[in-house]
Amino acid sequence: MLTYSFTNIGSDPLYQYLYKCIKNDILQGILPVGEKLPSKRSFAKNLGISTITVENAYAQLISEGYLYSIPKKGFFVADCNVHAVEKKNHVLPEITVENLHLTAPNSTYFVDFSSNQTDMENFPFSIWAKLIRELLHENRLELLTNPPSGGILPLRKAIANHLLAFRGMHVLPEQIIIGAGTEYLYSLLIQLLGNDKDYGVEDPGYKKISQIYRSHEVSCHFLPIDNCGIQISELENSHTDIVHISPSHHFPTGRIMPISRRYELLGWASKSPDRYIIEDDYDSEFRMAGQPIPTLQSIDMSGKVIYINTFTKSLASTIRISYMVLPRDLLQTFYRKLAFYSCTVSNFEQFTLAHFISQGHFEKHINRMRNFYHHKRDVLLTTMKKSPLWKYITISEEDAGLHFLMKVDTSLSDEEFCLRASKQGIHITSLSQYYETPPIDSQSMFLINYSSVPEERMKEAVDRIYKGCIT
Amino acid sequence: MLTYSFTNIGSDPLYQYLYKCIKNDILQGILPVGEKLPSKRSFAKNLGISTITVENAYAQLISEGYLYSIPKKGFFVADCNVHAVEKKNHVLPEITVENLHLTAPNSTYFVDFSSNQTDMENFPFSIWAKLIRELLHENRLELLTNPPSGGILPLRKAIANHLLAFRGMHVLPEQIIIGAGTEYLYSLLIQLLGNDKDYGVEDPGYKKISQIYRSHEVSCHFLPIDNCGIQISELENSHTDIVHISPSHHFPTGRIMPISRRYELLGWASKSPDRYIIEDDYDSEFRMAGQPIPTLQSIDMSGKVIYINTFTKSLASTIRISYMVLPRDLLQTFYRKLAFYSCTVSNFEQFTLAHFISQGHFEKHINRMRNFYHHKRDVLLTTMKKSPLWKYITISEEDAGLHFLMKVDTSLSDEEFCLRASKQGIHITSLSQYYETPPIDSQSMFLINYSSVPEERMKEAVDRIYKGCIT
Repeated sequence: MLTYSFTNIGSDPLYQYLYKCIKNDILQGILPVGEKLPSKRSFAKNLGISTITVENAYAQLISEGYLYSIPKKGFFVADCNVHAVEKKNHVLPEITVENLHLTAPNSTYFVDFSSNQTDMENFPFSIWAKLIRELLHENRLELLTNPPSGGILPLRKAIANHLLAFRGMHVLPEQIIIGAGTEYLYSLLIQLLGNDKDYGVEDPGYKKISQIYRSHEVSCHFLPIDNCGIQISELENSHTDIVHISPSHHFPTGRIMPISRRYELLGWASKSPDRYIIEDDYDSEFRMAGQPIPTLQSIDMSGKVIYINTFTKSLASTIRISYMVLPRDLLQTFYRKLAFYSCTVSNFEQFTLAHFISQGHFEKHINRMRNFYHHKRDVLLTTMKKSPLWKYITISEEDAGLHFLMKVDTSLSDEEFCLRASKQGIHITSLSQYYETPPIDSQSMFLINYSSVPEERMKEAVDRIYKGCIT
Repeated sequence: MLTYSFTNIGSDPLYQYLYKCIKNDILQGILPVGEKLPSKRSFAKNLGISTITVENAYAQLISEGYLYSIPKKGFFVADCNVHAVEKKNHVLPEITVENLHLTAPNSTYFVDFSSNQTDMENFPFSIWAKLIRELLHENRLELLTNPPSGGILPLRKAIANHLLAFRGMHVLPEQIIIGAGTEYLYSLLIQLLGNDKDYGVEDPGYKKISQIYRSHEVSCHFLPIDNCGIQISELENSHTDIVHISPSHHFPTGRIMPISRRYELLGWASKSPDRYIIEDDYDSEFRMAGQPIPTLQSIDMSGKVIYINTFTKSLASTIRISYMVLPRDLLQTFYRKLAFYSCTVSNFEQFTLAHFISQGHFEKHINRMRNFYHHKRDVLLTTMKKSPLWKYITISEEDAGLHFLMKVDTSLSDEEFCLRASKQGIHITSLSQYYETPPIDSQSMFLINYSSVPEERMKEAVDRIYKGCIT
């Protein structure tokens, strides 16, 4: 039987020494590939050591790929060159998780009217590259200095100035909390406001919001909306504490909450210290027409509005930077309860974005993108008007953001309509899909998100909808 | 009284039209700064419109800084040039939140032995800059394509290969979930495993871990450790479902869990389907001496270990990229419940890091840093040995990571010792601070984290400790 002397063991633990001896013999070919090793018990007895020592040595050899074990057979020397290890890796049984989770969920559609992907061609690559290059040369100390929980001061200042200029909001930098996406900020808010509260979300609405509340196992209601947004009477009846809304551009209907309803909501919130409004202003930069209505945050005198916005819509969906503006009365609580968290956005991107905003690039970018999307919308609408499809459709809410609604005169069910479009290579979603309980009048309404649709495919896409779903 | 005609109103809502008329008069100086506007009620009566319409117009003018209101006095024309708006911003009452939250928590100490900030001078700026530059030129499509929830495939593959080479772990890319820091990953795990579970953390331990569980309002126990780590008997008695440990380098004691205890822990976990082990391997790259012990993940045959590691220690504390390796049986649950979340790390940094690892830079960086920290530790220990302080101290656990423990022969309380050091400009923490219930033998033990301490300050720092705390 294999045997080793323990006279030269030095300061190693026993199992470690044994591990090294066997590993050495394997690497030198003294123990050839496939060779069976002694059983733990007999080996231990032979060497005059405990079984657990042999077990530990074998375990380390297995974990490093030098040995493999076959249940009830024993331990064998593995083929331990790199290729063998890779092969071993490959024969792990397949996991049947959708392919989606490993590669980017790249659309295989000819045109995807449901995608919220930002347009590829308009990201300001050269300016971004220049700003990063400068930072990596000149701001090394700042880049590597741990930021406060809410984010670096230059970015918070830049955002405060942006909010003043574009939304008329008077906000102090310390009210602004930077986070890696709005989804992350929602989870911070649950921790801030309490998971014993009742959260109310819009029906219809952006599915992810209710998914996030439910994933945190907090109580979450759906609240029906009318033409002006969430109805106060429904809110009063629902025991909601925190209402989560997008008043400047409701998703997916595109409706804008008039100022009267905004005041009513603020009135509702001021009736109890537990009540708050989360104002999600996600694509307000891209309003196509009309005077912007003041944000709820800016007309809120009782500290009841938490304003949230993101750069994922206005810059790139793959850069994860969002922020929230906390009312001043909540700041102490936030810093006491949650300031121990590290900021989730890398300093490198925080500084790049801060410079991008403060040097005026963001303003120019938004203006360029607004014109770009405006033009895209006009081309699509003109294309639709020229198509035989036009007789069967009515367009609404085309001024508010990056999508509009298309009402279709059809006897097809929504599922059937979307399925037929899909067979034509067109991905389209129905308004009813965004409802928890779809009302009758939501039928035959479809979302047309044109933000990522190439202009040159629009005519073909409209033709295909007509061909597949109307005739 | 001020009056306007509504004959040219066009398609504007009434309040919007009124808002524009007043704004125009203010901008043209027809309404001078300080001018009092009519009360809402009388103005509405005069114009033949409803009070709410006037109220809405005034609200928008206030939010945009054209008007201001004084309670019980009325509405007045503001000085609406930019400086006035800035001034208005400045006179908002001060918020008394610690300065810490606005600026980086930059140490004002001469030397900070408690900081986990990564060393400034060693970040591979030029390689990082080169990789980003290449990406921004050549990989634009990938940079802007939404990644799957778990992160981009090239980074997950690069990490899988790294884990195989450095930790002997056989992991499929789909088991790896990328997130913006381990703190974020903990919150994902609470959602995955359930907030009805009992979580157990090490006492002493890294405070943030228990803070995060408590912030999510889940049940969290402290479990005492002995020389080998968490005690199984304590674990059995505590009703813990999920145990959160750092077996390769316990913080702050630096202890390494021997393989026998690792097997016992796996045995404990396999007794119930609700039990899991979170293995936090946060600084294993910087082990100074000795053979690494296999990770719990690599000897776990029952799918009970969730492995977590981070690049914040090995690369830069301000780049927020961490990952976890889920056991294969938990993958389906993860993708079903949580794949709706967007990945929290920007594509730009995911791709940069993926290239950094796969081109071999990460391995070189770790080796360089390990030598760098090794040297730093040696210089500090040599400095201590030459100092009169040496007679009063005993050093332990100096091989395991970026800090060691210093036992001091002193009659001072831990608080008094740290306070005296602080008066000398030396920030130092006591082991007892990391305990929920400090045992007697944790007294007079202090943490010496040398990772961010400049070599040239070490002698002076040791002298100051001697001067301030011993003599």
